Amino acid sequence: MKSHTEYLEFNTTKRREYINITGKVKEILGRSGIREGMALVSAMHITAGVYVNDAEEGIIQDIDNMLEEIAPFGPDYLHHRTGEDNGDAHLKSILVHHQVIVPVTNGRLDLGPWQEIYYAEFDGRRRKRVVVKIIGE
Amino acid sequence: MKSHTEYLEFNTTKRREYINITGKVKEILGRSGIREGMALVSAMHITAGVYVNDAEEGIIQDIDNMLEEIAPFGPDYLHHRTGEDNGDAHLKSILVHHQVIVPVTNGRLDLGPWQEIYYAEFDGRRRKRVVVKIIGE
Amino acid sequence: MKSHTEYLEFNTTKRREYINITGKVKEILGRSGIREGMALVSAMHITAGVYVNDAEEGIIQDIDNMLEEIAPFGPDYLHHRTGEDNGDAHLKSILVHHQVIVPVTNGRLDLGPWQEIYYAEFDGRRRKRVVVKIIGE
Repeated sequence: MKSHTEYLEFNTTKRREYINITGKVKEILGRSGIREGMALVSAMHITAGVYVNDAEEGIIQDIDNMLEEIAPFGPDYLHHRTGEDNGDAHLKSILVHHQVIVPVTNGRLDLGPWQEIYYAEFDGRRRKRVVVKIIGE
Repeated sequence: MKSHTEYLEFNTTKRREYINITGKVKEILGRSGIREGMALVSAMHITAGVYVNDAEEGIIQDIDNMLEEIAPFGPDYLHHRTGEDNGDAHLKSILVHHQVIVPVTNGRLDLGPWQEIYYAEFDGRRRKRVVVKIIGE
Repeated sequence: MKSHTEYLEFNTTKRREYINITGKVKEILGRSGIREGMALVSAMHITAGVYVNDAEEGIIQDIDNMLEEIAPFGPDYLHHRTGEDNGDAHLKSILVHHQVIVPVTNGRLDLGPWQEIYYAEFDGRRRKRVVVKIIGE
């Protein structure tokens, strides 16, 4: 079994941003030399998510609107007693989930035709990381 | 390390359907010959989900009701500016998540007594696929 | 490829409880001898979740409040026609997701600085289990 690990870094200009990282994960897969296995793409922070969905601006805004509806930025979450103001970002991370596994088949990410991998930043303007770990052969 | 990959196909008659695929995943595991490892079951579409829960009609309808409450079919999602009418299906896919990993132990799916694997179709009446990829030994 | 499987047991005193299991997963990793791979941490029940987030009491209560807002305990879910009263717990499990994968790098759980692994009990006061399965080398 081979394994290959790399880290992606982000430092967004906005508090919330949705960044297509499919190309970067493909590059890492290429460097890994792995042809059959699984690629884990996982946020290393508790105020960010990773999901697979459409590279279409409308749906990205719809996702953001839904998350703001359920867990809006602003209210006095109990978490804010610590001095933080990002309670909403934790809740959004829980809802979206912080990771995906992409199957690797014949040396390629085995995604459907419209599936793109997104990093969802919910509390940006600081350095954040995603781990990409691929195991296989 | 061995790996084994198969694809399931669906073409539902209704827009939304919840289909128990545990038996099909067990068959694939049997064909793989893998006895220790992990089985990834992942929707290849951005308007479908895969989850593990109860094979009970009431809770399936409760899940559907909850998803309709949060992300109802019908409203003018921004995604609909593309001509699509399935914005709700994308949002439901995000909430349910599109994949699960089932541990494989002693040649069996290592599920709890009530855990069943479901394919959740949120925008059916067309050909859709799920990838089942098992790695291990 | 090596694999190592252990099961954690819970029997909470309250219906809902959020239990930090990071230490227990680290111990299992230590016993596995695996230095590069992936650790699956997965609830074996359909009324529990496993997530990664903050070990901070306020945000834990915020998560619980959000889940109660979306899927409150009490109402007449259709699932209750079976005689059960835990429809909310199934829905909370779907929303939080029942599993995480933790990358294993250099013999350690490759988590970010604030990431802790939680078992989320939504229908406790009975014996429940989590499977921890690590594969790698």
